Amino acid sequence: MKEMEPRTKQLLIQLEQRLLTEHRDLSALSAEEQFRIIADKVADHPEAITPVPQQGNNELLQKLKRAKERGGLLTVKFGIDPTGPEMHLGHAVPILMLRRFQQMGYKIQFVVGDFTARIGDPSGRLTGRPILTEQQIRENMRNYFEEAGLILDLNKKGRTETFYNSEWLGEMRMQDWLPLLQRVSASQMFQREDFQKRLEGGSSISMAELMYALFMAYDSVALKPDIEIGGIDQFLNLYWCRELMRFEGMKSEIFIVTNLLAGTSGETDSEGRFIKMGKSKKNYISVTENPREMYGKVMSIPDEVMWIWFRELTEISSEELKELKTEVEKGEIHPMDAKRMLARVVVGTFNHYDRNTIEKAERAFNQMFGKAKQLIPEDIKVITVTGGSRLVDILSKATGESKSNLKRMLASSRRGGIRILVENEYIPLTMEELSNKTVEGELIIKVGKRRYYRIQTAF
Amino acid sequence: MKEMEPRTKQLLIQLEQRLLTEHRDLSALSAEEQFRIIADKVADHPEAITPVPQQGNNELLQKLKRAKERGGLLTVKFGIDPTGPEMHLGHAVPILMLRRFQQMGYKIQFVVGDFTARIGDPSGRLTGRPILTEQQIRENMRNYFEEAGLILDLNKKGRTETFYNSEWLGEMRMQDWLPLLQRVSASQMFQREDFQKRLEGGSSISMAELMYALFMAYDSVALKPDIEIGGIDQFLNLYWCRELMRFEGMKSEIFIVTNLLAGTSGETDSEGRFIKMGKSKKNYISVTENPREMYGKVMSIPDEVMWIWFRELTEISSEELKELKTEVEKGEIHPMDAKRMLARVVVGTFNHYDRNTIEKAERAFNQMFGKAKQLIPEDIKVITVTGGSRLVDILSKATGESKSNLKRMLASSRRGGIRILVENEYIPLTMEELSNKTVEGELIIKVGKRRYYRIQTAF
Repeated sequence: MKEMEPRTKQLLIQLEQRLLTEHRDLSALSAEEQFRIIADKVADHPEAITPVPQQGNNELLQKLKRAKERGGLLTVKFGIDPTGPEMHLGHAVPILMLRRFQQMGYKIQFVVGDFTARIGDPSGRLTGRPILTEQQIRENMRNYFEEAGLILDLNKKGRTETFYNSEWLGEMRMQDWLPLLQRVSASQMFQREDFQKRLEGGSSISMAELMYALFMAYDSVALKPDIEIGGIDQFLNLYWCRELMRFEGMKSEIFIVTNLLAGTSGETDSEGRFIKMGKSKKNYISVTENPREMYGKVMSIPDEVMWIWFRELTEISSEELKELKTEVEKGEIHPMDAKRMLARVVVGTFNHYDRNTIEKAERAFNQMFGKAKQLIPEDIKVITVTGGSRLVDILSKATGESKSNLKRMLASSRRGGIRILVENEYIPLTMEELSNKTVEGELIIKVGKRRYYRIQTAF
Repeated sequence: MKEMEPRTKQLLIQLEQRLLTEHRDLSALSAEEQFRIIADKVADHPEAITPVPQQGNNELLQKLKRAKERGGLLTVKFGIDPTGPEMHLGHAVPILMLRRFQQMGYKIQFVVGDFTARIGDPSGRLTGRPILTEQQIRENMRNYFEEAGLILDLNKKGRTETFYNSEWLGEMRMQDWLPLLQRVSASQMFQREDFQKRLEGGSSISMAELMYALFMAYDSVALKPDIEIGGIDQFLNLYWCRELMRFEGMKSEIFIVTNLLAGTSGETDSEGRFIKMGKSKKNYISVTENPREMYGKVMSIPDEVMWIWFRELTEISSEELKELKTEVEKGEIHPMDAKRMLARVVVGTFNHYDRNTIEKAERAFNQMFGKAKQLIPEDIKVITVTGGSRLVDILSKATGESKSNLKRMLASSRRGGIRILVENEYIPLTMEELSNKTVEGELIIKVGKRRYYRIQTAF
């Protein structure tokens, strides 16, 4: 690897400096410039902004223009259901979009869906969710405000409003709902691809789930935002926001959807698409993850995922991203250096861009990484196995030793035993582990005095 | 026709006397006798009483027994939506069932569905209903209480309660609904035969209609009846009454369904079943119809319908009905005499069994009928045509006269003109009527001085 050219080094430093600036003031930008910043980060979908901006008919741009004329009178809504104990980086993507509007000086409406959380958004799910108690929801909620506060300025006077949607949904009487329920077609609510899949899979859909989109959409009727932000999985819900506003004789909101974030593992589904970050997939990083862990986890993602995260989790522009990628491809920048920058920016984003925190996280990672380097020989033998394989079978095959011989080796400290790398230390494997442990993820095993194996499960 | 035998005459007189007794007191009957009276009048359906009474496990009978032990503590609910301006005899069938329970000394709950009327019960309908204004519903409601009061004693102290279901449905907050909505399967609500037919027919179903059954069922949660009465078209709604009560940890009500009443015309559908009485079919008699008209309309029904009406609209028992039918079949009783008795009982039922009213109605009918007899020759030529045929074409064919000749005859009073029987008088047909009038139902036409035609549209 050659030394980085001064020009390239300069590029990286400048870029990082920009990405690590929390309190960007975008309010002085023209409506056109603001529009470009927004449009640069929306989901890869032709209708990511709806109504779709067209030459000569760009509703979003018009709104931004009018808002600027009137001193920033534009409200942007974002809602999130506190269905889990914590937010992860995937949740942060639309919230970062919301932050852009905040940085442009517009008013944001942050809605915690404590009512809708009692149902759970069925969008794209193959089974129903467990029903949360109000106690669980209350606990989650506390965290959600705190966690959103890591990204947004939730105390910005007159420019930020926070809501619980039970305020209007819970108290609304059925007779007030009736006119809306009469206008909405049940078959339209029902004939959704995700619902049909669930039914085919033998999972039932509750009436509450069927109505979820209407409940969420009613938030928009209650708050009358100009714009709403959501993940692309919210497409149908956001469609209903527009519909319900129309039914109520209001101007329908514009909605903007962001991509779902690829998970840490870089695993793909049967169609080759990255599996999205999700609590249940164990491929997530919490926004409150401690900086050292967060840094390390970002460093562990595959390069392909790195480019996605650059786009979704930082303020890098398409042009800058393209340039960075080109430099890496040309070999001017080592991918590891790009990833280190990403890790610093991500850690910064969720830690108020505190330089000290970022540097400490990086140092801790370097130490561990350096130590790990010493512990694992470069020519370690890599063995890929299918998940669930038993360790004794894997090692027997890898070493050519019989299982009984392996067991004898394990018991003999003179022969070096059989050890497993745990937190920078090789500790002896127990007989029980050797016989019954199955492999998920990655293990480093040392057999005897010299033989090292990196055992990985295939995706 | 031979003279009626004294025994037969006696039978008719006794039967009629019983059927014309309004204030039957059935409270002294044993639970078994009460059960038999109820079971004798339920719909022709194996689950007309649900849970189905079985040898050794007859929940309805058990309830009646326990109620008698405890001095009549048993509540029977019936609900009706004020979706039309008036009740007809078809509506009276389940209300007569309710009256039986009242006569047995049990408590009745009469629910006017002012909330549910805003939706309209979608059961068995091929298209949505027009949405009623609250004003329309209020007007209908006034009539419904009055009309039900013709059959039931709505003022019976401590034994009759009347309700509007907006009392609980309208005020209920969405957060109170949520636990129920979570327990109910949307697909179960959706996959109903009538809904599927509507969708196939291109008619959409609103969310409000989808939820109709739940709203109605909630009435039972609010009122906790032991028993509910409904028309057989209410089967699914009543199923949900039981389900919702179960969800709420209550003992599910027993439901009892009655047949839908055949309409006046005796028309049948494509499967040979009598078309049910309904406002839109113009085959109905309002419960507030004036006695003379009501009597005449009952007299106009086909004999087959007469037997149905005897069962559904009077307190005749199965045995009595069978005996009456046998006597008619043997020629011991003229069908007209049986029908006259039915007409008297029906007129009586909706006029507080006032003898004077019944007799006046009968006399008026006799006069009209006698007069009509004089006006229409016995050997009148009967012509059956398809609906929508034009009079001039029909008459030209029937008389063998050319159309232009018919027009000349119409203009010539010397030749007797062409006349139509209207209210016991032959009045001249106009040229316009001759040329363009189409036939629906029945017309009596006199052409020239001697030719009479009864023109009927085929069903």
